[in-house]
Amino acid sequence: MGWKRKDLLGMQGLEAAEITAVLDTAASMKEIAAREIKKVPTLRGKTIVNLFYESSTRTRTSFEIAGKWLSADVINFSASGSSAEKGESLLDTARNIEAMSPDVVVVRHKASGAPDLLARHLRCGVVNAGDGAHEHPTQALLDLMTIREKRGHLDGLSVAIVGDIAHSRVARSNIAGMRKMGMSVTVAGPPTLIPPGVEELGVKVARRLEDAVRDVDVIMMLRLQQERMTANYIPSLREYSRLYGLSLEKLRGARDDVLIMHPGPVNRGIEMAPEVADGPYSVILEQVANGVAVRMAILYLLIGAKGGGEA
Amino acid sequence: MGWKRKDLLGMQGLEAAEITAVLDTAASMKEIAAREIKKVPTLRGKTIVNLFYESSTRTRTSFEIAGKWLSADVINFSASGSSAEKGESLLDTARNIEAMSPDVVVVRHKASGAPDLLARHLRCGVVNAGDGAHEHPTQALLDLMTIREKRGHLDGLSVAIVGDIAHSRVARSNIAGMRKMGMSVTVAGPPTLIPPGVEELGVKVARRLEDAVRDVDVIMMLRLQQERMTANYIPSLREYSRLYGLSLEKLRGARDDVLIMHPGPVNRGIEMAPEVADGPYSVILEQVANGVAVRMAILYLLIGAKGGGEA
Amino acid sequence: MGWKRKDLLGMQGLEAAEITAVLDTAASMKEIAAREIKKVPTLRGKTIVNLFYESSTRTRTSFEIAGKWLSADVINFSASGSSAEKGESLLDTARNIEAMSPDVVVVRHKASGAPDLLARHLRCGVVNAGDGAHEHPTQALLDLMTIREKRGHLDGLSVAIVGDIAHSRVARSNIAGMRKMGMSVTVAGPPTLIPPGVEELGVKVARRLEDAVRDVDVIMMLRLQQERMTANYIPSLREYSRLYGLSLEKLRGARDDVLIMHPGPVNRGIEMAPEVADGPYSVILEQVANGVAVRMAILYLLIGAKGGGEA
Repeated sequence: MGWKRKDLLGMQGLEAAEITAVLDTAASMKEIAAREIKKVPTLRGKTIVNLFYESSTRTRTSFEIAGKWLSADVINFSASGSSAEKGESLLDTARNIEAMSPDVVVVRHKASGAPDLLARHLRCGVVNAGDGAHEHPTQALLDLMTIREKRGHLDGLSVAIVGDIAHSRVARSNIAGMRKMGMSVTVAGPPTLIPPGVEELGVKVARRLEDAVRDVDVIMMLRLQQERMTANYIPSLREYSRLYGLSLEKLRGARDDVLIMHPGPVNRGIEMAPEVADGPYSVILEQVANGVAVRMAILYLLIGAKGGGEA
Repeated sequence: MGWKRKDLLGMQGLEAAEITAVLDTAASMKEIAAREIKKVPTLRGKTIVNLFYESSTRTRTSFEIAGKWLSADVINFSASGSSAEKGESLLDTARNIEAMSPDVVVVRHKASGAPDLLARHLRCGVVNAGDGAHEHPTQALLDLMTIREKRGHLDGLSVAIVGDIAHSRVARSNIAGMRKMGMSVTVAGPPTLIPPGVEELGVKVARRLEDAVRDVDVIMMLRLQQERMTANYIPSLREYSRLYGLSLEKLRGARDDVLIMHPGPVNRGIEMAPEVADGPYSVILEQVANGVAVRMAILYLLIGAKGGGEA
Repeated sequence: MGWKRKDLLGMQGLEAAEITAVLDTAASMKEIAAREIKKVPTLRGKTIVNLFYESSTRTRTSFEIAGKWLSADVINFSASGSSAEKGESLLDTARNIEAMSPDVVVVRHKASGAPDLLARHLRCGVVNAGDGAHEHPTQALLDLMTIREKRGHLDGLSVAIVGDIAHSRVARSNIAGMRKMGMSVTVAGPPTLIPPGVEELGVKVARRLEDAVRDVDVIMMLRLQQERMTANYIPSLREYSRLYGLSLEKLRGARDDVLIMHPGPVNRGIEMAPEVADGPYSVILEQVANGVAVRMAILYLLIGAKGGGEA
């Protein structure tokens, strides 16, 4: 089974066998979503707390559905309206939550490393649901699951990741995971949004989107965050879209069976043309569906691993 | 039982037999609320998403309770704090939610027609929980249920609907439903708040509240929305209240067994005097209780109809 | 078992035997938190509504977990985004909620007496989760539970309560409960934050923190609310902390087995030094854990008492 960890903090700390264990578990979980009765008693009597300091209804909902289908009790603890506003520290809040005996705390926080801090101090399992520009491991796992499902394997595949590489936890987690699974990665984006020394992560850098997407198995477009649009990272939205937006035209050099991915929500017309997002190569909605399966797998593995029983 | 639809979008699209099917189902659901154990396993393993773009804790709570008593998993997906704030379109959000395999999406949106749009694009069931000034079908159904419960039948009854007819989805849905059920409807309100040509919906228009309420079986007072109070639709709150607020005095010409209804929350002292809202003719709280029963019925009929099984 | 009330409104109205009944029930509930499967069917088919007009994620979460472990349906009805914003009165909102057939409404409100008002008008049980500067009975009960757990009894113990006595519902509820249980209470704090005539509650007043904490069994530090920091109640935060903050140095005169309590969240460095909050005498996290057990007990006793059955 290969999974012995208390927490899921990032892809950088995982081994290939562990990633495979998650993907295999997720594949068997996915079948539950297709059932007439989407409910198994696996985590009955277990408590999962969603501790979200950044708003993200989609990711939070994905974890909530995952927990509920496994029959766990799921508690949403959003930072707004909480003691966080009263100036309580993250660690104090988390310790207080832990005192209520949850089995897993799922945390999203704008500070890189926040989940690691919690994991060191809490006995219960901690899942990183996105921390600053650091990691977003369940996103990378659902991306890998989607690619493996479509291609049958991961080893040897090539991926282009396009957009704001410098600030993207999705890019960071995916690069780490893909490299471990034997995939080759090329990144592309405006020079201001490619971190210096990114080659040390084992990726190639392409100057132009067209060069990056030629002949790859997978094109992963990143979301351009609002704050990047208004800062000086890019000359203009129009310029960004013209150079780094994925249009049908720019797909001309791509493979006939290329997979087009996006972590969502898509800025249609900015990083991706609507006809690409909704086109035949797009697996964006499969990514969302696999998100629930991956999160079910993680919750199951963490709580099973922790309980030591046949949870 | 006569229900074959995937969605509940409005009263205008329903036939009388379908309305009767909902009311009959709701009547049997209502008995659950009176039980010691308010829980049946009917929708176990089904997932309902409340997708609310307008805040409405009461309607959302009513759907949530309805779903939970039927043992469904209920997920609240509020637009605030969601991708909606990141500029994602309604359809993108809904497609993403659908990718998580819900059985029904309950949607409230300020744009008329938003639920219809979703229904056309989603495979899962869609329930309109209020769209702009268009429709609010579960409100009309609970109103009809309340009247039928009190009078034993609907056919041949007369109703006065008083207030802001022009902007009220409650009025629009009720007029459609009541006409289909053989009821006669008179509307009254300030001339600025009566839509031109409203007679084409098959209703009569009364100049004065006193004329409208005389001898009817039911008086339905509408809520005066805050934005109408501050715009130029009415000369002043005091004037509105004097002419179109329901006081004990204005009830003098009414029948001894008249039913007084309001969709809530009541602006006490504006459209209705407190002693009327809390008086013996008022069935306002019965409306709320029947709201849960009607929503249980709709969730049951949509998911049962969709699953095709004995859900 | 000694519990016959419909509601839990405050400690001032309880008798010692009733407090003991809650603590005994809570002790047996606590064992559930330690189980592999944290779930009992006791309140299956019962509905609990959390009606929170003041934000308090911690207390709300504690009630939510308590309800879910007992298998109740728990509905969060927050005032923000609700009809409360539309100007609906508390009583109207509560009556509407009651029409949806909940078994218990848990209410937090900034107005003292709000839960009493609801209790008089609602047939369902009402739990006060904090009302203004009035009462916070479940906090006092969890504090008493923690002390009894650590000392084996309550009668004859001595407590110092330090801080903003004048505005603290935690202090008020604890003083009432402790006096009933045969404990002696000394309060200390800036003269501006000690209510005149507090001695009539049966407590002693100490001028200095050092005098209050000497030889007592329990030191309960209160949270200094943000609004008190900015008003003119205290000369400066630094001055407050120097005189009324609990540091290791100020603990010199305390007993070797003193218990240090705080209702949370702690303003570290203001009313309590970090090394005290995290030190060996601190039972702050035990308080949080016991909060879930006490709330399970209250929900069980109210719904059991109301249902009259073997709930």
